[in-house]
Amino acid sequence: MTAEIITIGDELLIGQVTDTNSVWISRALEDHGFRVMRKQTVGDDEPEILRALRESEQRVDVVLLTGGLGPTKDDVTLNALCKHFDTARHFSTEVHEHNQQLFAERGVEMNDLTRDQAMVPDNATVIINEVGTAPCTWFERRGCMVISMPGVPMEMKWLMTNRVIPRLQEYYGRKAGIAHRTCWVTGYTESALAMALADFERDLPDEVRLAYLPQPGLIRLRLSAYCSPQAVADRVADVLRLRLRTILKEHIIAEEDLPIEALLGRRLQAAGLTVGTAESCTGGAIAAAITSVAGSSAYFKGGIVSYTDEVKHRTLGVSAADLESVGAVSQPVVEQMARGAREALGCDLAVATSGFAGPSGGTPEAPVGTVWIAVATPSAVVSKEYHFGAARDHNISRAVNMALLMLFEKAAVPEVQAPTA
Amino acid sequence: MTAEIITIGDELLIGQVTDTNSVWISRALEDHGFRVMRKQTVGDDEPEILRALRESEQRVDVVLLTGGLGPTKDDVTLNALCKHFDTARHFSTEVHEHNQQLFAERGVEMNDLTRDQAMVPDNATVIINEVGTAPCTWFERRGCMVISMPGVPMEMKWLMTNRVIPRLQEYYGRKAGIAHRTCWVTGYTESALAMALADFERDLPDEVRLAYLPQPGLIRLRLSAYCSPQAVADRVADVLRLRLRTILKEHIIAEEDLPIEALLGRRLQAAGLTVGTAESCTGGAIAAAITSVAGSSAYFKGGIVSYTDEVKHRTLGVSAADLESVGAVSQPVVEQMARGAREALGCDLAVATSGFAGPSGGTPEAPVGTVWIAVATPSAVVSKEYHFGAARDHNISRAVNMALLMLFEKAAVPEVQAPTA
Repeated sequence: MTAEIITIGDELLIGQVTDTNSVWISRALEDHGFRVMRKQTVGDDEPEILRALRESEQRVDVVLLTGGLGPTKDDVTLNALCKHFDTARHFSTEVHEHNQQLFAERGVEMNDLTRDQAMVPDNATVIINEVGTAPCTWFERRGCMVISMPGVPMEMKWLMTNRVIPRLQEYYGRKAGIAHRTCWVTGYTESALAMALADFERDLPDEVRLAYLPQPGLIRLRLSAYCSPQAVADRVADVLRLRLRTILKEHIIAEEDLPIEALLGRRLQAAGLTVGTAESCTGGAIAAAITSVAGSSAYFKGGIVSYTDEVKHRTLGVSAADLESVGAVSQPVVEQMARGAREALGCDLAVATSGFAGPSGGTPEAPVGTVWIAVATPSAVVSKEYHFGAARDHNISRAVNMALLMLFEKAAVPEVQAPTA
Repeated sequence: MTAEIITIGDELLIGQVTDTNSVWISRALEDHGFRVMRKQTVGDDEPEILRALRESEQRVDVVLLTGGLGPTKDDVTLNALCKHFDTARHFSTEVHEHNQQLFAERGVEMNDLTRDQAMVPDNATVIINEVGTAPCTWFERRGCMVISMPGVPMEMKWLMTNRVIPRLQEYYGRKAGIAHRTCWVTGYTESALAMALADFERDLPDEVRLAYLPQPGLIRLRLSAYCSPQAVADRVADVLRLRLRTILKEHIIAEEDLPIEALLGRRLQAAGLTVGTAESCTGGAIAAAITSVAGSSAYFKGGIVSYTDEVKHRTLGVSAADLESVGAVSQPVVEQMARGAREALGCDLAVATSGFAGPSGGTPEAPVGTVWIAVATPSAVVSKEYHFGAARDHNISRAVNMALLMLFEKAAVPEVQAPTA
């Protein structure tokens, strides 16, 4: 089954907003056996939406649209859909009652524009959006499904997960088989890993794809087997994963398809360890990553963002003399930060960062991009110096990743290290 | 002048990588008077690239492609372009010498695959990529320019800035005018604002667009005037912004096209105030947002992420009795957190959050989605209770936004409040 995605909104076209909806939808479709052939973005412009619709409908089995369903004048998607499918609209009491309830819960008064959100197309299936006011509309013509969802990411994700994917599966009878396997690999650059896997890749059957998804310090390898039925896809993927394990051995540090912060959380919970943070250049982003994981309160005690020398000294007990003599971006300071965080927060492990994120700052010895990272455990402190680049956002995100990875390594206990089947 | 962007790569289609190139290109084109009509993403697949090329070429003046120019076998963009423009290829000594030099600088040996990158199309203008090995190729046929660039963001940006935009400007004589104006509006829901602006929108000339970009607690309004020459576009946009100011008055809290954390930074610097954070449910995300802004060390002192009652008591001095009796998600606790952060961090303003981000947790009185936010100033503490939804990421991001907005309001000084022209 093939699909195309059309994202709609001027803000996407002029570069004010990055389209993350289509990334999420692509992944969800791929995971359920749909092949995404093309993605398009058009503005809030009826003729443009119509043109894109007409073209996509010719090419694939499913067309998914997001955006342009708000109550304001610049939202024209539903008009375009009604024109395309040559249909009038009617007032849906069901949608209206849902919206009334939603407004009441939020304590906001309904006006004429929000009332209009219940005007739904005559010849579409209308699916209530339980987390928002714009419903999902589902058209079908000559074997092609055209499904329109709101552009608010939370609403789109809710609709996709709870309504659209299940309906698509029902329709297409879960025919396609697809199996993904993930291996997190450390200790290789991308090209070195590609060389190590050259024979493995040469022998891959046509229906299997191997993707390299490098991150700072580690590479996520993703095996995807597209075979029917599902049992065959699973078997092929498992056999190939076994070969990967034989080739890469201890370089595979985990096999769950989860971000590093979630892998860390699992390992901490399994080991019964608590964790805390002391951040300078990462400014709270490590703590934010750790706490983005549901259930993190079971192992995360807290963090201190010490952006000034004064706060490093006051809350983490970093020596004022060291701050003065060697400066904040140094091994003694980052190690004292990690130790100080363990003490101040009462946690088993603490990670600390100190660096120059840029774009300005830095010294001749420690230019912009220099970041020290330390982890304190009950028995020791380890630290490492990194040299990233000139871009602030990049430096912060690389430092966060390396810090999480360092914590992950230090949280290792034997029963967690062995890859699970 | 109109443009379309085609980004090429399987990794973009299956949701493994987020397309940020087209966001950057859109912004660069818009800033130079090009109107981006559509963006498309296709896989590393020759027939698909050809189809997209054929369609785009019919519609616009300029088609920009990125990606699929690497040395490996899955990069097929240049083959597709040569087929589309019916041209053979030749070996470019100039490109080859540049690549040899680049490899020598990097201390890497050249192989046959990298040698092939000098095989350029006969009937295109070839532009050396000074920061990489794949050149930019520039085709022209029947009034449409088709420009292909590598997908590595740094290389694409270098080519766009130093070669493509200047050449396009030379060709099109800097004719087109485009002016954007932004207003940040509070105190309205999206639909209420649309009703308040109904007359304004009705009277807008055809060449002006108004977009609503809602965020939790505030709406970014964007006016775009497309008229020539530039001076007229600017004048039209300014006149309309004046009208918006008259209609919306004090509901316009800022006019810079910057995220709220950057607006807050400007205001704090102008007022000479420092800030700190005490976060529970937001887990460091407020501090991370504030410090994502370059130069934030001038006004951000630090933050405390107090994820447990123990840390709230120990580092922020929250009363253990209150934590016991009313619980952490309560007005007394969040206000003590804000006051405690001011003291512990030595800052003028401190913001605090305490809530149930979910998906589990919560109490009958304070279900998941309940978030208390407080701001402590030198003279007072204000606090407010919010009820968001069930999704953890959404609750965190809404709480961050509301906290930044509350800080922004409290950091107001008269000379910053007045909108700047």
